[in-house]
Amino acid sequence: MRLCLVLLGGLIAATPALADEGMWMPSQMPALAAQLKAAGYTGQPGSLANLAGPPLNAVVKVGGSTGAFVSADGLVLTNHHVAYGVIQYNSRPERNLLREGFVAHARADELPANPDYRVLVTTGFDRVSERVLAAAKGKTGRAYFDAVDAASKALVAECEREPGMRCSIANMYYGSDFYLIRQLELRDIRLVYAPPEAIGRYGDDIDNFMWPRHSGDFTVLRAYVGKDGKPAAYWADNVPYRAPAHLQIARDGVKAGDFVMLAGYPGTTYRHRMASEFAEQIGWRLPAQVDALGRLIAIIEDEGGKDPAAAVTYASQLAGLKNSRKRFQGELEGLVRSDGIAARKQQEDAMLAWLDRAALPAATRADIDAAQALLAQASATRERDLLIGQVSTQTQLLRLAMVVQRLAIERGKPDQARESGYQQRDEALIEGQLKQLQRRYSPVVEQRLLADIVQRYQQLPAAQHVPEFDAAFGRTPEELQQILTRVYGSTRFGDEAVRLASLKAEAPSLAASDDAMLQLAAKLLPATLRLEDERKRRDGELLRLRPAYMAAQIAWYRSQGRSIYPDANSTLRLSYGKVAGFSPRDGVDYAPVTTVAGIVQKHTGKAPFDAPAPLLAAIARGEFGHTADPVLKTQTVDFLSNLDTTGGNSGSPVLNARGQLVGLNFDSNWEAVSASWKFDPRYKRAVHVDMRYLRWLMEKVYPAPELLQEMNLSP
Amino acid sequence: MRLCLVLLGGLIAATPALADEGMWMPSQMPALAAQLKAAGYTGQPGSLANLAGPPLNAVVKVGGSTGAFVSADGLVLTNHHVAYGVIQYNSRPERNLLREGFVAHARADELPANPDYRVLVTTGFDRVSERVLAAAKGKTGRAYFDAVDAASKALVAECEREPGMRCSIANMYYGSDFYLIRQLELRDIRLVYAPPEAIGRYGDDIDNFMWPRHSGDFTVLRAYVGKDGKPAAYWADNVPYRAPAHLQIARDGVKAGDFVMLAGYPGTTYRHRMASEFAEQIGWRLPAQVDALGRLIAIIEDEGGKDPAAAVTYASQLAGLKNSRKRFQGELEGLVRSDGIAARKQQEDAMLAWLDRAALPAATRADIDAAQALLAQASATRERDLLIGQVSTQTQLLRLAMVVQRLAIERGKPDQARESGYQQRDEALIEGQLKQLQRRYSPVVEQRLLADIVQRYQQLPAAQHVPEFDAAFGRTPEELQQILTRVYGSTRFGDEAVRLASLKAEAPSLAASDDAMLQLAAKLLPATLRLEDERKRRDGELLRLRPAYMAAQIAWYRSQGRSIYPDANSTLRLSYGKVAGFSPRDGVDYAPVTTVAGIVQKHTGKAPFDAPAPLLAAIARGEFGHTADPVLKTQTVDFLSNLDTTGGNSGSPVLNARGQLVGLNFDSNWEAVSASWKFDPRYKRAVHVDMRYLRWLMEKVYPAPELLQEMNLSP
Repeated sequence: MRLCLVLLGGLIAATPALADEGMWMPSQMPALAAQLKAAGYTGQPGSLANLAGPPLNAVVKVGGSTGAFVSADGLVLTNHHVAYGVIQYNSRPERNLLREGFVAHARADELPANPDYRVLVTTGFDRVSERVLAAAKGKTGRAYFDAVDAASKALVAECEREPGMRCSIANMYYGSDFYLIRQLELRDIRLVYAPPEAIGRYGDDIDNFMWPRHSGDFTVLRAYVGKDGKPAAYWADNVPYRAPAHLQIARDGVKAGDFVMLAGYPGTTYRHRMASEFAEQIGWRLPAQVDALGRLIAIIEDEGGKDPAAAVTYASQLAGLKNSRKRFQGELEGLVRSDGIAARKQQEDAMLAWLDRAALPAATRADIDAAQALLAQASATRERDLLIGQVSTQTQLLRLAMVVQRLAIERGKPDQARESGYQQRDEALIEGQLKQLQRRYSPVVEQRLLADIVQRYQQLPAAQHVPEFDAAFGRTPEELQQILTRVYGSTRFGDEAVRLASLKAEAPSLAASDDAMLQLAAKLLPATLRLEDERKRRDGELLRLRPAYMAAQIAWYRSQGRSIYPDANSTLRLSYGKVAGFSPRDGVDYAPVTTVAGIVQKHTGKAPFDAPAPLLAAIARGEFGHTADPVLKTQTVDFLSNLDTTGGNSGSPVLNARGQLVGLNFDSNWEAVSASWKFDPRYKRAVHVDMRYLRWLMEKVYPAPELLQEMNLSP
Repeated sequence: MRLCLVLLGGLIAATPALADEGMWMPSQMPALAAQLKAAGYTGQPGSLANLAGPPLNAVVKVGGSTGAFVSADGLVLTNHHVAYGVIQYNSRPERNLLREGFVAHARADELPANPDYRVLVTTGFDRVSERVLAAAKGKTGRAYFDAVDAASKALVAECEREPGMRCSIANMYYGSDFYLIRQLELRDIRLVYAPPEAIGRYGDDIDNFMWPRHSGDFTVLRAYVGKDGKPAAYWADNVPYRAPAHLQIARDGVKAGDFVMLAGYPGTTYRHRMASEFAEQIGWRLPAQVDALGRLIAIIEDEGGKDPAAAVTYASQLAGLKNSRKRFQGELEGLVRSDGIAARKQQEDAMLAWLDRAALPAATRADIDAAQALLAQASATRERDLLIGQVSTQTQLLRLAMVVQRLAIERGKPDQARESGYQQRDEALIEGQLKQLQRRYSPVVEQRLLADIVQRYQQLPAAQHVPEFDAAFGRTPEELQQILTRVYGSTRFGDEAVRLASLKAEAPSLAASDDAMLQLAAKLLPATLRLEDERKRRDGELLRLRPAYMAAQIAWYRSQGRSIYPDANSTLRLSYGKVAGFSPRDGVDYAPVTTVAGIVQKHTGKAPFDAPAPLLAAIARGEFGHTADPVLKTQTVDFLSNLDTTGGNSGSPVLNARGQLVGLNFDSNWEAVSASWKFDPRYKRAVHVDMRYLRWLMEKVYPAPELLQEMNLSP
């Protein structure tokens, strides 16, 4: 439909997107001008490429997610869940801000965030591909990877010479392009306004990922700087940051079909992965993970049923496993529903067929074939790699014994050369884990988990076997059982004092330890290091080879007059679309806007459906006035759009056709879990807090007239 | 809205209904002519009062529910679940008609139903109030009840003197009016067409009560009579019944807003009960039942967890308890959502206030007050009555000991005077129960259930205590425990031979039995008989007094120009309304029509979502042709309307404005479980099979061209 409009207009160069899919780099927006206009945007598309001007210079990275300036004096609007740590940090038993919410009526009342909380303002987004890749040219494998890494680090160091700047290199299109991201690092952030958790997280885990939703998932912070206007750590004398631009919260609301646009920092997507990777993800990895986690869950639940102490000890691991399994199941379900394997295969086949006819350098096709071969090679041991990964991620005692052995080795290197996670800065964290093991570990449960994992490893064909693992665990279930009984029966590594002492030991003495668990770890370590090295070599090669695939893909898209965007990588992106409900299944339609009636319907009085009394009373009074929806005649709460988002877009501002703030992104729907791989326009929706709900709460439920005035929203 | 239309037309006498509520007696239809026309009906409303003409003489009672003639040669269309027993009766391991479905391509292939299966054609519906009440005048209590009962029995006997007739007395408006129902009893019913269970019950218990729905819940039967045209038992030479009229299945479908009308035999509703009864049902009885059943469920589940044998033994009782609790919960939830107590109270208060001003006989108000007092009196012991009821319904061994003791006493009376359930015809059933006890009973579980019930009884105030129960069970939990341990430890009633022998014993010897369980039953029996007698006395009085309340209510409705219908009582009723979806909660809309896409979405390959391969293949082919919806462009399956229905309306024909059959009623939505007490127009919906789905299945999936031709539906 959009394609037709553009073709009719003869604007093939403007390259239409596929449906409403797209996490565009700001620099791509001018080329999308025709589509933006056709979709209803009334501003200047060209201005959306300008990081130094509104609206983009008002969009910031907050606590790993997104937020936006909403006043000239540095007010930052983000999600309650993005600012959760800040609210928690300021809560005391006698003044629980999570429970009660918080309103600072004067600047002096604003509460400092935890010292590591940051607001980052992107000020530069420059292509530096030539400099990053210069030294890598001609190299392969690990050497290629290391050259890119070294050049990147040099660029970052140079950039960060300017005080108050945080820099990073972003890899676009899988190694095709590199961008230097410059961000002003604001370090004095304060809490200004938070609704009670029973509003900000209404429905919590039960409603998470679900629609219809009724959360007021927002919080207002303020960024402060030194009196010199430069970023500074918290200091009582600091002054509010004079934001170069801020977004104006709209006085109008939204309705189905309205144009909306969103800017933010989406984390990771895999949409341009190869068809073979789609097939592996959907056909093997997701089902295998669902199955593997299910086995571990069943063991922990069985042991927990027999021993209440074990149930408590493993509660956190169990919750994590279940959460992951749910995510994997959702992703699998979505990708199957969207026919992910066949759709991607068809697309890739068409692309490769075109490539064979097109005049691209022959090296392109050779690189693509080499990358495919490399992925196939990795796949040959995928079952083993999954199980060996679980040996160290799903055990507690064995995992820490391996960490201690590895740390002793890494300590022999200069700190910068140590593996990430084993540097000096990480040692306190490792010590903490050694200490808290007691609360996470039961020898009975761990033996059963490990036995299950290794028995499945033992059943794999010989080609997937690793000599060190065979030697350490034996080759039959009986041998394994004997070994585990002996190791867990005799080890003293279960004693905290023994573990902490091992942290101080030298590598040779640890490697020669007579403790059965440390011995086991020492036997496995050479193999895990070797497998890690193989993986890094392969990753380096893929970094070198994938750009050929992406170049072919980009050229193929261009040949059809279509635009393409790089997969998400936590850099600033824009998406545009419209307010839209959807049909999750035959016979059911989800309305795009929810109302306060749903809060009352869901209220049970018990968390997470324990709407605060002042909110229920205000709903019962029904005085919604100018924040009420003109058609629904009641107060709206959240709304849905078809904007293209992923994790990291939490707190992203949602703008209307005039660039005014109408919503705050905070979640996706369950049916869209698979969108990190595939955008299915039938099901991909994003969930936003309606700014009318924010205004109503700030006006009538937990009033903050000063803030409304500062945001130019006085009733 | 309907009220406005009528008032504008100056037709106050035509008495509009409240919204689309109403299970009207056929005789009431002419008075609703204006509303029917306004709603879109194009036929003659007067003809809807005529039992001897179409469409009503095509609507029949089938297997306790409803069906309709759909051909001149006696084809009867009803639900798959209404004909379930017929299909089951004809299934063999080697030819499982439930699983495979069934198509009779010739009359000779049609299979006889189980011999007790009946199709009843209502031929008379006559008011006989004067004759029923003549002898009751001046009497009270039990005597009033007995007089009504005797007069009714005499009328029925007189009516049934005509061969082939089945007659009954229907009590309308709670004893205000009595009707003699005459029904032709067709006894040779044969199975003609049934889709596989995986279509007819697609979704089964999981989808039961749910929307969106995707069941093809229909079956075609044929009624046969003797060669003389008179009802007869199955005989190979019998001939198809020449139905005096039949319904024509429509060739058009339905869409949201279309007028629809339904005729059938709704079972029981309580909408005209008094406000105090609403308050007791919602405020006490439903929560008390949910709680009481929950306690029993918890005990059975706990014991089942400890002993797998007990889990098997109590599986059926547990399923029944859970099913009942779910119904009670749904009813409670719905009545609370519809504010049932306050709404009914407000209505009754207004009615009584009007009554005090109106010129009704003073006796009316006195009778109403007396009925209220009687209900209050019953309420005073409601906790005890609930618990004492559970003693005999939720135990197995004790219950049967009480049945045996009671039967011995009843045997001392002439058969006609025996209590229902203890007549000669019931003895085989009782013997069966005595035999199958072994598969339903565990002494450990029963002791715990009984202890829980009786301990709660022991905690009741003295006024609710019954001397015999106190004497038999003791007054403290400790005494109770001793007694139960002794009784269950020493009784030999757990042996089948002992139980069967007890069935042959005389009353005096049984009463003097030295078996502890029979002794316990003998001690409790006088109290249960006394309480039963009290209840019957009260029921008789209410039968005498309630007509005053109903008379006031009818007069009050009439004073406002509104019609009123009697509560449902399994007699032929009509309702009219429209095709309509609804919003079950904020943000969610249910479409009124489902499509085959939902069958594929729900399909898991495992029952109850195991759509048959021929169906899935036909959906995949997408050849829907003339049965496809013109707007949705696909095959519809089920649809929703706001028609007023309740249990018993299963299989009711749904007619369009021209009187053609567009749907077959088969269920209600979960949100409407409470409609037996209160019709809430926001949530009350009925679920129907779309006749276009039936036609498509019969044309293209499991073809039956002969039947389509007979029903004048050849493509």
